Amino acid sequence: MEDSESLRRRLRDFVDTRVIPAEDALEDGARAEETRSRLRAAAKEAGLWALPLPAEPGAAGLPLADYLGLAEDEGRSDHGPEVLGSASLLNVRMLATHADPALREWILPGLVDGERHIAYAMTEPGVAGSDPHGLRTEARQGVDGGWTITGRKWFTSAAAHAEMVLVVARTETESAPRDCFSVLAVPTGATGFRIVRELDVLGVGGQYELEFDRVAVPATHLIGPRGGGLRLAGERLALGRTLRALRWVGQAQRAVERLAARLRERRLGADTLADRQLMQRLVFEAELQVRGARLLSEQAAGLVAAGQPSTVEVSMAKVAAARALSTAADSAVQAYGAEGLTAASGLPRLLRTARAARILDGAEELHISSGARRLLREYATAGNQTGRGNDLLEDTIRGSEE
Amino acid sequence: MEDSESLRRRLRDFVDTRVIPAEDALEDGARAEETRSRLRAAAKEAGLWALPLPAEPGAAGLPLADYLGLAEDEGRSDHGPEVLGSASLLNVRMLATHADPALREWILPGLVDGERHIAYAMTEPGVAGSDPHGLRTEARQGVDGGWTITGRKWFTSAAAHAEMVLVVARTETESAPRDCFSVLAVPTGATGFRIVRELDVLGVGGQYELEFDRVAVPATHLIGPRGGGLRLAGERLALGRTLRALRWVGQAQRAVERLAARLRERRLGADTLADRQLMQRLVFEAELQVRGARLLSEQAAGLVAAGQPSTVEVSMAKVAAARALSTAADSAVQAYGAEGLTAASGLPRLLRTARAARILDGAEELHISSGARRLLREYATAGNQTGRGNDLLEDTIRGSEE
Amino acid sequence: MEDSESLRRRLRDFVDTRVIPAEDALEDGARAEETRSRLRAAAKEAGLWALPLPAEPGAAGLPLADYLGLAEDEGRSDHGPEVLGSASLLNVRMLATHADPALREWILPGLVDGERHIAYAMTEPGVAGSDPHGLRTEARQGVDGGWTITGRKWFTSAAAHAEMVLVVARTETESAPRDCFSVLAVPTGATGFRIVRELDVLGVGGQYELEFDRVAVPATHLIGPRGGGLRLAGERLALGRTLRALRWVGQAQRAVERLAARLRERRLGADTLADRQLMQRLVFEAELQVRGARLLSEQAAGLVAAGQPSTVEVSMAKVAAARALSTAADSAVQAYGAEGLTAASGLPRLLRTARAARILDGAEELHISSGARRLLREYATAGNQTGRGNDLLEDTIRGSEE
Amino acid sequence: MEDSESLRRRLRDFVDTRVIPAEDALEDGARAEETRSRLRAAAKEAGLWALPLPAEPGAAGLPLADYLGLAEDEGRSDHGPEVLGSASLLNVRMLATHADPALREWILPGLVDGERHIAYAMTEPGVAGSDPHGLRTEARQGVDGGWTITGRKWFTSAAAHAEMVLVVARTETESAPRDCFSVLAVPTGATGFRIVRELDVLGVGGQYELEFDRVAVPATHLIGPRGGGLRLAGERLALGRTLRALRWVGQAQRAVERLAARLRERRLGADTLADRQLMQRLVFEAELQVRGARLLSEQAAGLVAAGQPSTVEVSMAKVAAARALSTAADSAVQAYGAEGLTAASGLPRLLRTARAARILDGAEELHISSGARRLLREYATAGNQTGRGNDLLEDTIRGSEE
Repeated sequence: MEDSESLRRRLRDFVDTRVIPAEDALEDGARAEETRSRLRAAAKEAGLWALPLPAEPGAAGLPLADYLGLAEDEGRSDHGPEVLGSASLLNVRMLATHADPALREWILPGLVDGERHIAYAMTEPGVAGSDPHGLRTEARQGVDGGWTITGRKWFTSAAAHAEMVLVVARTETESAPRDCFSVLAVPTGATGFRIVRELDVLGVGGQYELEFDRVAVPATHLIGPRGGGLRLAGERLALGRTLRALRWVGQAQRAVERLAARLRERRLGADTLADRQLMQRLVFEAELQVRGARLLSEQAAGLVAAGQPSTVEVSMAKVAAARALSTAADSAVQAYGAEGLTAASGLPRLLRTARAARILDGAEELHISSGARRLLREYATAGNQTGRGNDLLEDTIRGSEE
Repeated sequence: MEDSESLRRRLRDFVDTRVIPAEDALEDGARAEETRSRLRAAAKEAGLWALPLPAEPGAAGLPLADYLGLAEDEGRSDHGPEVLGSASLLNVRMLATHADPALREWILPGLVDGERHIAYAMTEPGVAGSDPHGLRTEARQGVDGGWTITGRKWFTSAAAHAEMVLVVARTETESAPRDCFSVLAVPTGATGFRIVRELDVLGVGGQYELEFDRVAVPATHLIGPRGGGLRLAGERLALGRTLRALRWVGQAQRAVERLAARLRERRLGADTLADRQLMQRLVFEAELQVRGARLLSEQAAGLVAAGQPSTVEVSMAKVAAARALSTAADSAVQAYGAEGLTAASGLPRLLRTARAARILDGAEELHISSGARRLLREYATAGNQTGRGNDLLEDTIRGSEE
Repeated sequence: MEDSESLRRRLRDFVDTRVIPAEDALEDGARAEETRSRLRAAAKEAGLWALPLPAEPGAAGLPLADYLGLAEDEGRSDHGPEVLGSASLLNVRMLATHADPALREWILPGLVDGERHIAYAMTEPGVAGSDPHGLRTEARQGVDGGWTITGRKWFTSAAAHAEMVLVVARTETESAPRDCFSVLAVPTGATGFRIVRELDVLGVGGQYELEFDRVAVPATHLIGPRGGGLRLAGERLALGRTLRALRWVGQAQRAVERLAARLRERRLGADTLADRQLMQRLVFEAELQVRGARLLSEQAAGLVAAGQPSTVEVSMAKVAAARALSTAADSAVQAYGAEGLTAASGLPRLLRTARAARILDGAEELHISSGARRLLREYATAGNQTGRGNDLLEDTIRGSEE
Repeated sequence: MEDSESLRRRLRDFVDTRVIPAEDALEDGARAEETRSRLRAAAKEAGLWALPLPAEPGAAGLPLADYLGLAEDEGRSDHGPEVLGSASLLNVRMLATHADPALREWILPGLVDGERHIAYAMTEPGVAGSDPHGLRTEARQGVDGGWTITGRKWFTSAAAHAEMVLVVARTETESAPRDCFSVLAVPTGATGFRIVRELDVLGVGGQYELEFDRVAVPATHLIGPRGGGLRLAGERLALGRTLRALRWVGQAQRAVERLAARLRERRLGADTLADRQLMQRLVFEAELQVRGARLLSEQAAGLVAAGQPSTVEVSMAKVAAARALSTAADSAVQAYGAEGLTAASGLPRLLRTARAARILDGAEELHISSGARRLLREYATAGNQTGRGNDLLEDTIRGSEE
């Protein structure tokens, strides 16, 4: 059997030689679909497809801990997970655990194959991402047990290709705030479902604003228990953020490699840029941040894979990885000069991901404030046995900004 | 006569209510030309057209010092100078001083009117912006005194609409490095001139790569003395950088205003974002940087307008303004969250200008290193009478990255 | 009459050639008193004594605006104001305006001469500096109108040499919180007054903890109106902070000069440190911060001298000056290496003042938060006429951390 | 046998309950000696004495990897290693490997016991720490093979109590620069040896300037081979720096604990400081840096213990640990306010170590520049087999700033 280092090398090689050179095509409306299909076929052929997913529903894929060890390399391109079939991991896990069996059987095989797609819709226009209790999309249950959903969502990835959208909606009015929401699966062909527009996010698309105008779904489309929506959302968070942190470290590493190559190659009279201390500083500081972020992300990944409390560790990994990517991408651009601002250099793509990273998965400020409060509690109880509790509920509440 | 404060208010009002709301249209190929024409007509009608330019060739416009006092407000939009007719200031000054009289009479009236356009081409692909001596575009003089120009330039703004390009080319081979270059005016209709491509700079166009393949121009198209090219380039620099710094301060101020508005308006339960200390911090730090950059830029502008040595002051203004814009735009985006990443928020435009600002007009690292060396000389001579000299030549050499 | 530039040069020369070389002696218990006396005599002889104070009570000294123009140079040494007789400015102004005539006549001539000293005691152990309403020192009025004071104060400068301490004490219990405190003058010879200890503040003394154990003073020792204590405290703040900011800029400038000298002189093989880009960066960044802080401090000083609203400007000046000093002193030490850590280099003194500066006069975080709230109000009202009001009361409340 | 976690807890407990409370006494000339002796006796009794040293010469102590796992906790106080008998580790290792047998037998038992002391003298006044080739202390060999040493050293720790000083001196004139120096053992009782002065380093003593005026030592006092001095110096470096990084992490952790305690305890009306976002930010950022620095330091320690190439990793650990300590100590002081500046708070001690850390063991700028150059070589060769070499010699040359 292939050892993990060999698998990692093959994966990285695939990303570096197949995915990264195709990034322009993958972001070009006219060529995207064909390019993606071709690369997916190649990934399947190479045995690199959907590594963390069950090979077939019910059978186990790569153990989570092993997959997390590959996530940095897979994520060297923002397109890696999608081309390699692991982008659906969070949805697959949610459905495999919580969906009605019939629904599960209908959707899971296609999800694993890459033939079907699902979107996840939580964030709403006009509601602060840090305030899940403010969500306004509502679902009312009819006498037949079915649900009627009304509201708006945005920043929903991949909705244009999805067969189904998982929607977090308010279903209860009398419960404690954290118990008021449920997850419902909405087919995109349903009456009243509408894609309002594709958002232009730092110049690229792929995220959508959606409208639900009295969309009806049957009772079996409730995912998990009534009122358990924020709990389900919370379950995705630790893994989702950790994956994203690892991928950002991958892209930060890629930016440092570009930076190093530029310094070596750019001549200035008899010297190269590599001889200039201000350029050396860019390399050292970026590498230092990348290494620190990698170690913190691996530490968080270890806890997440083991199912241990990891909230602070995940926050730290998330913040450190987003910053490392910002620093590394910015430094690479600075070393390339004006050329680094051009699309042809490939660097603006990294800048874009970097800028979004400080907001996605919870804005930095949210992690700082909630992470610090948790740290302060841990320091307060250090020495006695209570220490770190299982406070999934609080995670849930913090988690809505995924 | 209108006092300067009234003029400033009218100008700012025009930019805020006419230009800024039209930014999307001005960057949309289909609507840009029509929108620009309409706004220019409005500016002319309002008496805000081409304030620093001579009303007609030979007659004086607003004194430079007065215009510099308006540049921050004019520059609150990147499109301000172009819509208001002052974008051609550097070219008009160069031609008015150095061009052959016939050439001058042919081009200047149209430049001032906005009917004609000129581009300025210095930077070359493959040559570090900090190394003017490495420029490779060449011009050879024929027996009739005419010139034949061969080479490539890029990051040339507005070349697609220009009637003429001012090219810095190597004309001498035996002179001291700093005396080897001259400026030549190349009509864009000349044989051998070609626009290779429009560059995609952080997602927007408007800058071009140009090819000169044995383009012939008459002797009268030499601008200024033979071998004086870097000197002419240097003359543009102090004013060009100061103008840009003032405009960046204008956009930074605009970003802080957006930030403040968001904090006030965004509700979080019973509070607003304005009640959160981490948001208060964003405002305070951005405002602090903007105010510091404004004072430094005004100080530089005073020296430039008075024709006094200003190299260090201009470097400091440039660096401080680019950073203030980076901080303010970044903070506004952070306060808007994911919405701030969308084109509809208008903020990515400010982020883009901010990122470019740290490279344009000389990368930050160049200013740090050359600025420090000059400072160290000044500190070394403080106390004796030599102090700061007139070292236009060195400015010239530093200056080529405009 | 001497022009201001000549006066400024003479003042700076005195500080650089007389005060700075004597700093070790001024901080050495055994030699401090004699050195201070000698330098004060020299300052008087040079006509540089007590410039902002009335030459004699009633007669005017240098106008405040003129003195503020000299404060940076006077403050190049922490000992400048004390040696040059202007350290008592805030106390003199408070007493001249608010003290009972007999008390004023008794103390003012000696204060101006430097023969008498007064301390100002506000901060208390166990009470956050940002929370003036938490102050616990109390004064109760007896039937004869006299006051009996009980409580503790600390961080009281110069108390060991003072004839009198101005104490902020709670005198009211029924009033609004801001009207509960009054200022009382306590002779240090009074029964029940005790210096508990000299504090060791980053290794130096000069600040004291005081105990007031039922100290009795007559009714005439009330300074200003009953309940007006926080108002009086607030009056000192804008000027006090502005002065301190200007002095920190002076010390930051001194640190940059040391840094520049070191880079020039330190040889590394054929080069000097000045040839290293990482050292050039230290100079550029420190100079940039110093210039920005100077312009902001001068702006604040202009408003303070004119009696105009200045709270935000003073906060920005304070924060910027403290940071500029931190950066400049840290950079000078870094360039000196291990030698810069030794007392003989003189640099630890600047580091010490720098570290304290980020806490004194209101911790940075306090200025950030309260400055931002005020800025947000100003942005909210920009456009209508209310804008910035005269909110001395709020200043008062913010001000207690002086 | 005691497991490592139990040993670690006992060690930490000893440092926290015995050493840290005695820091004032250990830095007070009058009480230092007695306190140190008492604590050492307690450490011996607790079985915590000299953990990494051979129990007796020839016998093995704790394996290096195990000891490195304890170094953070031991180093929570700057006095930990000295009180616990591990401060002599680098000297013991050098002598055990390179000293003449007779010399070794004479000195080692006392060194391990703590009855004898040795100092290590490399740095010289007037010579940049980054330039070992500039060292000027000379040793000439006489006809009997003995050496006569002349020169000056400074920043020599513990010289006042030492029986012997290990001196790096120039012994060769014809060799390649890196082969010109040797290490010689100089008894402090030798004629011509003189302690010039104790340096005041940020207010504390313990480091000395030494003079060698034709000091004669026998041939057997040469440590290691002639001309191998920089090589021996280099051998100490990786371990020395890693140990120091681990200890700084320990002190940074201690500062974060102080910070957390302050935020919890300090009341502000109905809240505590812990409720303020600007204070939460201090905790989060400090903790983030401490965790990153810990992981980087442990990574470096692993390589050092395994004898693998570690130069970049050690540089990164050193820089990260010094910064983490700076941030954490500074934040703790900021949260304590003026009280944090007083000796009684114990925090100035951490500030002092933090400031020195950015210079000791190679100034940050040296690590940035040399670390980046090595990184750039590694990136250049990534993909072929050369990768990272054994370049001890370069380490040696970089290493002289220990």
